[in-house]
Amino acid sequence: MTIALDAMGGDRAPGIVIAGADMARHRFPGLRYQFYGDGEHLEAMLAGKDGLRACSTVHHADSVVTNDMKPSHALRHARDSSMQLAINAAREGRVDGVVSAGNTGALMAMAKITLKTLNGIDRPAIAGFYPTMRGESVMLDLGANVECGVENLVQFSIMGEVFSRTVLGIPRPTVGLLNVGIEDAKGHDEVKQAAARLRGMDLTMEFLGFVEGDDIGAGTVDVFVTDGFTGNISLKTAEGIVSLYNSLLRQAFRSSIPARIGYLLARNGLAKLRTRIDPRRHNGAMLLGLNGIVIKSHGGTDAFGFANAIGVAVDMVAHGFNDKIIKELEIYGAAPPAAVRAAYS
Amino acid sequence: MTIALDAMGGDRAPGIVIAGADMARHRFPGLRYQFYGDGEHLEAMLAGKDGLRACSTVHHADSVVTNDMKPSHALRHARDSSMQLAINAAREGRVDGVVSAGNTGALMAMAKITLKTLNGIDRPAIAGFYPTMRGESVMLDLGANVECGVENLVQFSIMGEVFSRTVLGIPRPTVGLLNVGIEDAKGHDEVKQAAARLRGMDLTMEFLGFVEGDDIGAGTVDVFVTDGFTGNISLKTAEGIVSLYNSLLRQAFRSSIPARIGYLLARNGLAKLRTRIDPRRHNGAMLLGLNGIVIKSHGGTDAFGFANAIGVAVDMVAHGFNDKIIKELEIYGAAPPAAVRAAYS
Repeated sequence: MTIALDAMGGDRAPGIVIAGADMARHRFPGLRYQFYGDGEHLEAMLAGKDGLRACSTVHHADSVVTNDMKPSHALRHARDSSMQLAINAAREGRVDGVVSAGNTGALMAMAKITLKTLNGIDRPAIAGFYPTMRGESVMLDLGANVECGVENLVQFSIMGEVFSRTVLGIPRPTVGLLNVGIEDAKGHDEVKQAAARLRGMDLTMEFLGFVEGDDIGAGTVDVFVTDGFTGNISLKTAEGIVSLYNSLLRQAFRSSIPARIGYLLARNGLAKLRTRIDPRRHNGAMLLGLNGIVIKSHGGTDAFGFANAIGVAVDMVAHGFNDKIIKELEIYGAAPPAAVRAAYS
Repeated sequence: MTIALDAMGGDRAPGIVIAGADMARHRFPGLRYQFYGDGEHLEAMLAGKDGLRACSTVHHADSVVTNDMKPSHALRHARDSSMQLAINAAREGRVDGVVSAGNTGALMAMAKITLKTLNGIDRPAIAGFYPTMRGESVMLDLGANVECGVENLVQFSIMGEVFSRTVLGIPRPTVGLLNVGIEDAKGHDEVKQAAARLRGMDLTMEFLGFVEGDDIGAGTVDVFVTDGFTGNISLKTAEGIVSLYNSLLRQAFRSSIPARIGYLLARNGLAKLRTRIDPRRHNGAMLLGLNGIVIKSHGGTDAFGFANAIGVAVDMVAHGFNDKIIKELEIYGAAPPAAVRAAYS
């Protein structure tokens, strides 16, 4: 398996990309990398790392997609960028997946134009992981589509369910549509119609109807589906509240000498808590619905976080996510409800 | 000052309503109450509480708005409910404000029909408090309007700014529109146009443009403005994440004997942290934009939380919020930009 890495994307590239790849290589023996970026610089950085160098090739790219570049501009003027060349490698079948910590909008636009969407998918979505009381849930869309129609929400539900079942291995994932209440009459037309469609489709997915914002932390369903505007703001609200709580907790432990000692006594348990909600552990958002595996790493992550994003790409490739979703979409598009159910069993 | 209390609204009514009123009365000497609900039951509950009884009157209501009642149904069939009678008292000038822990949708619908919206306001909004790194911010709309046009977002911004300035006493509140990025090109048409309108209006409000979900925890602005769909889901996401963190923290402190001792040593600091993010302290959402002061308490709150909701009503009445917002809206509607600025200075 070979993964293309956009070595120039992210706040601390290419350092954390190379260090992250080195970390992930120990977790996935046999994994190979193609680094896309400033060739000379990358060669110099790889020089000391014999193990990593042996399983990597370096591919020079003349330019870089910056964070403030508009997607439309990047599409036209960054054809020789590390991001675009990495995606080209996926289109040409030279790699099995792509990971980038660069500009999200540009990555989505380039991936969509270059790889095209899967048959039956109008628009790709960004999916990510949330820590919950029950473990971990998937949420989509996290920002690829600020406006979503009924059909988009239905397609996101199917993609999220297949992802959860095939990649995460949950036998019968539960799916919920984020809304302002759980009653049928709540919400705007798009969510109401999407819910009606999903209820009527006789998919074998466990569609639980509407869920609310506080169900995310509770982990009420395995897959939370929403439009990209709401999903992005909800995700970032959660990140901001975790930062706030972390910071208040630090203040609490520094507020007195006994509190400092208390921290030392409790630190093993607290370390577990930190691990549980560590955003780096949940790093790696999936661009679902493309003819190819593309993973977006958080731009500000470190090597550990980037290694986890590579891990997400490896999982998606290893579980043949795209083949499975294509099959699912064919059934959904062509067959009558009874046949859908039969095809699952 | 007299406040009407819907004594039958909320999960633990009328118990927590009476206990909360008793608590708030000590904080605001001279405050008077009108309790609306089951007269006999209320009289019996007040019988032992001489201090509270002395500053209260009881007004019998034949029915109760239940939580599962649709707003349209409540409007037609609950005219003799404790909620409707309490709002009628506000319309007729018999009280200065209303507090209810009942059905939010019904409360908003009844308040809008009975009290009418302020001149210049098309739709009222629900505003609430968020704990932040900097202290506390206001956010609106939290769920009254699942779909909002440009004009609604502009009006919410003005109402939020006036609230923050007049009731919270922030001299020059900063205002931000929630979006999926801070760049001008980000987001859907409504937020983009609302931002353009607010920038062009030459209001003296400190409009900082777009803010993101993680700015809420950081407290980047004093007033966060968004549509009711996004606001509701963001608020509840935050609540769910706080519950998750609380619960993981409890687990951490129970994970070993040293951790338990650690908790005991750090508990003063931890108690401060808990107070800081205690949802009961931030209880009391304001229905802004009405010809009257109406406060929605969380349905599941306790007496302490309900007392805080009464406190919010008292603050709004004491600071003459509605008179000030009417003045502001007149200026905004009638005067040219220069006059607006002059009127503020």
